[in-house]
Amino acid sequence: MDGPTIAASQPIVGISSVDIDGHKKCSRNYEKWTADLHRILCMQGGDDDGSYARNSEAPASAIDLSKPFLVEAINRMKLFRGESSLRIADLGCATGINTLSAVDFLVENLEKRYSNESVKKPEFEAFFSDLPSNDFNTLFRSLPPMNIKGLHQHTRSSINSRRYYAAGVPGSFYDRLFSTGKLHVAISLSALHWMSKIPVAVVDKNSKAWNQGRAWIDSARKEVVEAYAEQSEQDLKAFLHCRAEEMISGGLLYILMAGRPDAEHPEHQLGDPDSRAKHPFTNSMDEAWDDLVTEGLIDEETRDSFNIPAYMRSIEEVRRAFNQCNAFDIGRIEFQRVPEHSKEKQEEWIRDPLSYGRTKANLVRATLKPMIEAHLGSSKLSEEMFKRFETRAAADTKMLHKTCYYGIIVVFAIRKLDFYCNPLHHQYQMSYAQRFVDLQRNRHDPLGDIIVLNFSNANPKRSVASSDDVMTRFAEE
Amino acid sequence: MDGPTIAASQPIVGISSVDIDGHKKCSRNYEKWTADLHRILCMQGGDDDGSYARNSEAPASAIDLSKPFLVEAINRMKLFRGESSLRIADLGCATGINTLSAVDFLVENLEKRYSNESVKKPEFEAFFSDLPSNDFNTLFRSLPPMNIKGLHQHTRSSINSRRYYAAGVPGSFYDRLFSTGKLHVAISLSALHWMSKIPVAVVDKNSKAWNQGRAWIDSARKEVVEAYAEQSEQDLKAFLHCRAEEMISGGLLYILMAGRPDAEHPEHQLGDPDSRAKHPFTNSMDEAWDDLVTEGLIDEETRDSFNIPAYMRSIEEVRRAFNQCNAFDIGRIEFQRVPEHSKEKQEEWIRDPLSYGRTKANLVRATLKPMIEAHLGSSKLSEEMFKRFETRAAADTKMLHKTCYYGIIVVFAIRKLDFYCNPLHHQYQMSYAQRFVDLQRNRHDPLGDIIVLNFSNANPKRSVASSDDVMTRFAEE
Repeated sequence: MDGPTIAASQPIVGISSVDIDGHKKCSRNYEKWTADLHRILCMQGGDDDGSYARNSEAPASAIDLSKPFLVEAINRMKLFRGESSLRIADLGCATGINTLSAVDFLVENLEKRYSNESVKKPEFEAFFSDLPSNDFNTLFRSLPPMNIKGLHQHTRSSINSRRYYAAGVPGSFYDRLFSTGKLHVAISLSALHWMSKIPVAVVDKNSKAWNQGRAWIDSARKEVVEAYAEQSEQDLKAFLHCRAEEMISGGLLYILMAGRPDAEHPEHQLGDPDSRAKHPFTNSMDEAWDDLVTEGLIDEETRDSFNIPAYMRSIEEVRRAFNQCNAFDIGRIEFQRVPEHSKEKQEEWIRDPLSYGRTKANLVRATLKPMIEAHLGSSKLSEEMFKRFETRAAADTKMLHKTCYYGIIVVFAIRKLDFYCNPLHHQYQMSYAQRFVDLQRNRHDPLGDIIVLNFSNANPKRSVASSDDVMTRFAEE
Repeated sequence: MDGPTIAASQPIVGISSVDIDGHKKCSRNYEKWTADLHRILCMQGGDDDGSYARNSEAPASAIDLSKPFLVEAINRMKLFRGESSLRIADLGCATGINTLSAVDFLVENLEKRYSNESVKKPEFEAFFSDLPSNDFNTLFRSLPPMNIKGLHQHTRSSINSRRYYAAGVPGSFYDRLFSTGKLHVAISLSALHWMSKIPVAVVDKNSKAWNQGRAWIDSARKEVVEAYAEQSEQDLKAFLHCRAEEMISGGLLYILMAGRPDAEHPEHQLGDPDSRAKHPFTNSMDEAWDDLVTEGLIDEETRDSFNIPAYMRSIEEVRRAFNQCNAFDIGRIEFQRVPEHSKEKQEEWIRDPLSYGRTKANLVRATLKPMIEAHLGSSKLSEEMFKRFETRAAADTKMLHKTCYYGIIVVFAIRKLDFYCNPLHHQYQMSYAQRFVDLQRNRHDPLGDIIVLNFSNANPKRSVASSDDVMTRFAEE
């Protein structure tokens, strides 16, 4: 259970750069599926052995490990005392055990915070967001009935009832998903290492960044890795820019994504040689594609044009994107190493390597099946690929004895104060006056207690207040 | 295309009264499927011949006919000048051509209103709500890309782009779906004539209200009809109560539902004898069930325990529920008669009665298939039922020459002002002060311009302001 297999679904959205830049060197299928990837890519739906719902224990364990971090974030965020309801978004929610439990945990701890500080609890609205290709039907049908005091519920109440209003939001988190300035909390768990698209150069035979014979970038040539790194940087910036617009000042952004240690160069996407070698996107994956070529089931071009759109960032890369966005104050950022599986599981697999192969293949199915099916244009052929992968993974018995790790980066940040002020528009001043009063009331909150207001400028002006800024002026009504 | 076939999906939610009241006289299947109906009932998903998406021309024509009514409602609602975004809910949205076009039309006309009155346009958030059994996946995948100025969209823009943020909300509209006081507009199109459950008495052999040998209530005995009417009344009250809590003062509630003329008693669910006889829930339906019994495919108990949970209200019944709720001012309410199909279609069917039978059977499939499958416990058996229905409908050539109608009730209402005031809570006064300023600013809006504020009472106090009330006092900060 290495890095990217823990991922939820936000890969490859919108117009493929292949179209934009006019490069037409790669296979026809590649052009077709990358152009409309937001329609086909997702974690595998349903709940059979190859579904994401059945293969998301690894993200669950990463999320569990990071829970103290989330609690710290909640305890440091601003309490929105004036608000009757808090809006929470889970970005890249997928469909599985993690989807609901993460939001349940979040709401539970927010409620505790309000309770501890003797502040009236607001209502909660949870927005589960993922690509339109995500299986929202299964997600919606797994929602327990609501249990909120005063509700006129016909439905049975149960221990597993939920304490928030739920909605699903279809779309890519690299675009705007919500109206301006209304989100109080946004979390993204095991999703942001999926890129919005595959860089065109890595599938261009004439480019130095052509990624021949590899499905991913670990240990790839410098140019390939750079193309990925650049796309990854653009994506994270787009993500932060959209969230900056959607989130209210003082709002909490909490991200958990697959990542690499700062010490590692990007061509080493995983933390150590063993973890790299054992990762399902590296050796076994490349061998499986080669098998298909050797057996004459696909040609080399088809193999070479398949690339996995995932990138493991370092803390430094994440920090850089936050700094450039300049709309958030990072509260804490950390790299953590998570064992790929339990000791018991490892011992079981050593006794039965075939079951190890099956498990690993199901993990890959859960995350890559829709993508590989689209690339090969055939579910039968894609199944052949997974079979080769299963055999290759099971045969690599030497690796079975190694305990490997995947890396995650966890970060939380607070949306800075940010005003577009125009003294000509009376209504803006009104709402700022209101916000100022709210702010004064909340002045003991650890973050978000400094405000810049500037009504002297006749043109709309954007002022961003960071911890270093001071309140300059306050124009009362 | 008679009344209930135009319906979207909100039937039968929660605990069946069969469980509550301890009556165990009806068939086992009945108990099973009614207990969990919110999990199985919906308009038929997908897009094949029997899907709701392919059989929703009738609701489309009803919605088209009522568009001037909706425009009037929009022009009479309060403009929310202080709000940066308007929240719109489509309750019982189903999945089909109507779902998106209704919200598109609504947003377009709201934008016009803001533009005409030179008020800055807000953003729009559209919430598509239906039971969790609705096919949200198909709905989400049919959403065109967003096209909002200033968005960082990767997706292609197109003529069919949408100008609102979209979300799906799974749940029954007879329960709370949204947080308190945040909805600006709620519409429900062709959905509210579906009841939350089947009254237990109509499937109880020992009850006077036992509805033997009939699938629906048209021309049924008085007790049967009364049981339906009572359930329908409870449902509408629950619906209005929930919306009253969710909607902001001045918000617009717009409902289009199947209904009957005021002059008709409830046992005459359709407006005239021909329309009643031709309705897909009456003669052909009962004959088809009888055929299954005669052929030995089901027993009488199975036939008798199936009831269609739809009720056509009169304007008087709708008014009564609004009056009892006392949270809305009705702007206008009307009954309209809509021809069941075009003259061309009728002539085509007279030439080819078999195609008429097929069309009619597909209409019934689109609305009742999940329910009938659950009742019979077999999709094969349910298909046999639809085949009998098709044959019976096609054979009734006499009716083919009659032009029939279905009835709809259209109503729009404005959420009254409604405050829970407590002078001990400073923050409440603040927000009322703010609202008062908003209100003064909007004082030329035709509705919602009268306010009651009472801060003199030390206990929380609820004051509802209707058009007859006056502003009594305003306690400034």
